[in-house]
Amino acid sequence: MRVLGVDPGLTRCGLGVVDGLPGRRARLVAVGVARSPVDDEVDQRLLTIEAQLEEWLEEHAPDAVAVERVFAQHNVRTVMGTAQVAGLAMVAAARRRIPVALHTPSEVKAAVTGNGRAEKAQVQTMVQRLLGLEELPRPADAADALALAICHLWRPAGALGAPQRAPGSMTAAQRAWAAAEQAAKRRA
Amino acid sequence: MRVLGVDPGLTRCGLGVVDGLPGRRARLVAVGVARSPVDDEVDQRLLTIEAQLEEWLEEHAPDAVAVERVFAQHNVRTVMGTAQVAGLAMVAAARRRIPVALHTPSEVKAAVTGNGRAEKAQVQTMVQRLLGLEELPRPADAADALALAICHLWRPAGALGAPQRAPGSMTAAQRAWAAAEQAAKRRA
Repeated sequence: MRVLGVDPGLTRCGLGVVDGLPGRRARLVAVGVARSPVDDEVDQRLLTIEAQLEEWLEEHAPDAVAVERVFAQHNVRTVMGTAQVAGLAMVAAARRRIPVALHTPSEVKAAVTGNGRAEKAQVQTMVQRLLGLEELPRPADAADALALAICHLWRPAGALGAPQRAPGSMTAAQRAWAAAEQAAKRRA
Repeated sequence: MRVLGVDPGLTRCGLGVVDGLPGRRARLVAVGVARSPVDDEVDQRLLTIEAQLEEWLEEHAPDAVAVERVFAQHNVRTVMGTAQVAGLAMVAAARRRIPVALHTPSEVKAAVTGNGRAEKAQVQTMVQRLLGLEELPRPADAADALALAICHLWRPAGALGAPQRAPGSMTAAQRAWAAAEQAAKRRA
């Protein structure tokens, strides 16, 4: 299973591709940032970002795209551009019939650090450990995109659309998720 | 000059095509609403709206696309979808190298009624008069898209990218704009 994580932004849009299966170590495939010139008009900037999103989808052919859920309460100055780039990522995936999932920043932090309110540095450190990288993921601000992809790979089975089990009985994927959360807590 | 006005929205996206030139009566070409099912996932809804935007661009081949500028302070529950549809409209136009302009709701209201804080009904009435329609534009909530297109046709010459004149000296387009504003005030 290959996931493209997208941390949307008009000036810098984090992109991270990770291979993995629930309960298995995730593997880094690619990480980078799509950019658009701040002096361009918004329509041109969106077009520039879209072209880069298309390239990543074309080159890496992910099985799913995980996009950070944007809230209106975010930084008001940039939230419109962020929402628009998130929309472009969703549409680019939907056009290729690739399933799209939205994850909140807290879900992502909880998935990789065990704490929904973890600091950025902690998320970077955990992304490095979980992917077995020799150094912190570069560029640093694309670590969130990798964390999104890992979060999506490890999400509980219920979120996969699998039948819900009775409370107390966990699926293999749910056990893997819980184990990963515990492991993340131990290592942090 | 043909302008497609887009009043963005995920559930209902107003679309209006108007032909005209500054100082000339504007002519209605087409008006309608792009919709997406509220029960669909967001990525599918965006894809559905995008397909309809593409159809309108293909069928009407506008010279410019005027999109309502969305502010983060708008209705928080729907603003993300609204911003995303605005982004899709901008990108769809930019892909075809059609110039895109953003106009605020106050600019649009001022352009068609002479009052930046006019009520919705007043905007509808003026769109009817300015386009010489026998009845109020239908569907009613696409009147804003027509008003956007008219606003763009009549925008001051400075907004066209023409050289700025010294204050006091108006271009033909600026005179037409001012005359339209005056006419709108008289009729209202």
